[in-house]
Amino acid sequence: MQFDSLDDIRAFCRDLPGGDARAAEAAAQRQQILTKPPGSLGRLEDLAIWLAHWQRREIPRLDHVMIAVFAGNHGVAERGVSAYPQAVTLQMVANFAGGGAAINQIARQAGADLRVVPIELDRPTRDFTVAAAMDDDELLNAIEIGYRTVPPDCDLLAVGEMGIANTTTAAMLCAALLGGGAARWAGRGTGVDDAGLARKRTAIEAALEHHRAILGDPLKVAAALGGRELAGIAGAILAARRHRIPVLLDGFVATAAIVPLAQLDAGILKHCRAGHVSAESGHRALLGELGLEPLLDLRMRLGEASGAGVAILLLRAALACHAGMASFTEAGVSGAEK
Amino acid sequence: MQFDSLDDIRAFCRDLPGGDARAAEAAAQRQQILTKPPGSLGRLEDLAIWLAHWQRREIPRLDHVMIAVFAGNHGVAERGVSAYPQAVTLQMVANFAGGGAAINQIARQAGADLRVVPIELDRPTRDFTVAAAMDDDELLNAIEIGYRTVPPDCDLLAVGEMGIANTTTAAMLCAALLGGGAARWAGRGTGVDDAGLARKRTAIEAALEHHRAILGDPLKVAAALGGRELAGIAGAILAARRHRIPVLLDGFVATAAIVPLAQLDAGILKHCRAGHVSAESGHRALLGELGLEPLLDLRMRLGEASGAGVAILLLRAALACHAGMASFTEAGVSGAEK
Repeated sequence: MQFDSLDDIRAFCRDLPGGDARAAEAAAQRQQILTKPPGSLGRLEDLAIWLAHWQRREIPRLDHVMIAVFAGNHGVAERGVSAYPQAVTLQMVANFAGGGAAINQIARQAGADLRVVPIELDRPTRDFTVAAAMDDDELLNAIEIGYRTVPPDCDLLAVGEMGIANTTTAAMLCAALLGGGAARWAGRGTGVDDAGLARKRTAIEAALEHHRAILGDPLKVAAALGGRELAGIAGAILAARRHRIPVLLDGFVATAAIVPLAQLDAGILKHCRAGHVSAESGHRALLGELGLEPLLDLRMRLGEASGAGVAILLLRAALACHAGMASFTEAGVSGAEK
Repeated sequence: MQFDSLDDIRAFCRDLPGGDARAAEAAAQRQQILTKPPGSLGRLEDLAIWLAHWQRREIPRLDHVMIAVFAGNHGVAERGVSAYPQAVTLQMVANFAGGGAAINQIARQAGADLRVVPIELDRPTRDFTVAAAMDDDELLNAIEIGYRTVPPDCDLLAVGEMGIANTTTAAMLCAALLGGGAARWAGRGTGVDDAGLARKRTAIEAALEHHRAILGDPLKVAAALGGRELAGIAGAILAARRHRIPVLLDGFVATAAIVPLAQLDAGILKHCRAGHVSAESGHRALLGELGLEPLLDLRMRLGEASGAGVAILLLRAALACHAGMASFTEAGVSGAEK
């Protein structure tokens, strides 16, 4: 086990590995001499420098890009919080394996390897309105699975999820750790109706009451009020940080998965970028809380790493410019007049 | 000549070719049966349907994508409105030919053919603060060049430009046709300082006064206050409409180039999408005036079709999902519960 106890995770987050400021500075200098007005590639320049920082090389690479999609089932689904039956989680995992889902097409387009990691789909977490969704060992096990998913030589990791009812779980984590109650965080997910949305809010409020004694402990919250696929994402993010691999977060659920870690140390966010902002109502507020600016805003709300997967394309464009453009000197182009 | 007179253009715009509503409807129906909650791919769904509409097939294709970059020089450059010397226009055209510019890298990434079309770089337009930049024949000639650039069998066209001082020309067209004066439309372009920005505004205000007699005639304005590369873009957009080819507009200058046509008939915008919103200050307002919602907002402000080029990647992702995803029936995935 990478982490034998919650304290091991707390210790890791107290002393997070850093990137390479000199590589980032070299990349920033390089951007200044390429044939364009300084800054004119906007966020594409920032992205190239960010990749350089975490990959610790002036010219980063994207030869080995992985999209990891974690799947889990949720006891709270019994409360009627989703428009779809729980069986769809497993059916969609089969669809991923068969190549028929959106993320299969996006991964191919993005030149990324797709890794789908179902975590005990036949053993949903317990309904958190009346019990702890997971105990510490169950949480650690899911984190470990996520951690092991990430190859140390990966150049970029995009993380996403599949799990019927998991926008309820994501909203639950946000409500427990960031405040504002169910109203702030519960949205329509895959398309629940007004009655379903009301059930979602009721479940979250009930769980906030039931678990009020542990709300001050982010990892206890991740266990009692989280989900296995969210814990898997957290584990993958921890592994990526260990190996200094830059990470693209997907939508509301994938972003909520990092909240417990961010509460231990907000520095965990530094090797992460928000691939997009989802149409799921809580996501924009969540990104704001975390200080993350999304790369895309396309009203997507599918999950399965689809938004992060599309954002990989932006990183490829950023890197292509960074690595391939001529300098003013090389191209014989005059600079700005003084 | 495609258009022998300005009246020929006016006639074309009075009777614009349409797309195929049935193909669009078939594409929209297809989106409903794919394995995702309806609407959850957001704008990627809209883009697939839009491509289907103009390509007149339920499953569109992006086998032959062209990026056309038009270049021109501007008499108003003499007024000290740019941070760069006019020689840079030609130098950058050489850089495009040598493969060293941003758009070369982006075009390769996007799987697009790059066509660079310099239009009489050795003959800048006249300084519009004191004369007509072009006469009718010069305008028609540049439109013709743009028109001929577009192969009828092209699946998608992205248009952009290169031309020192052309954000002044773009702001000029906007001020002349949309109102609000120089203050609303003049920005820092490639990075002009405060004094340069003041010169830019002064030039625009002077030209508004000098040409006030023709401000009610969009095509006269395109001649007297426009630029050759902007006219080339307009010609390419007209050709794309003739052949029902969908178009991605680039930044402030490329978008300004369509304004005279949009004033003849706003329907010209229907086969166009805004690839991105530029950091150039007037662009967001211009998109708002035209009712165009940008696909990307990455603080880019380079021109040369770079923003539209990156947006091609989004269309490829949209098409990959539209064409490649399994239906609920094919994948054996349960639909939403009623």
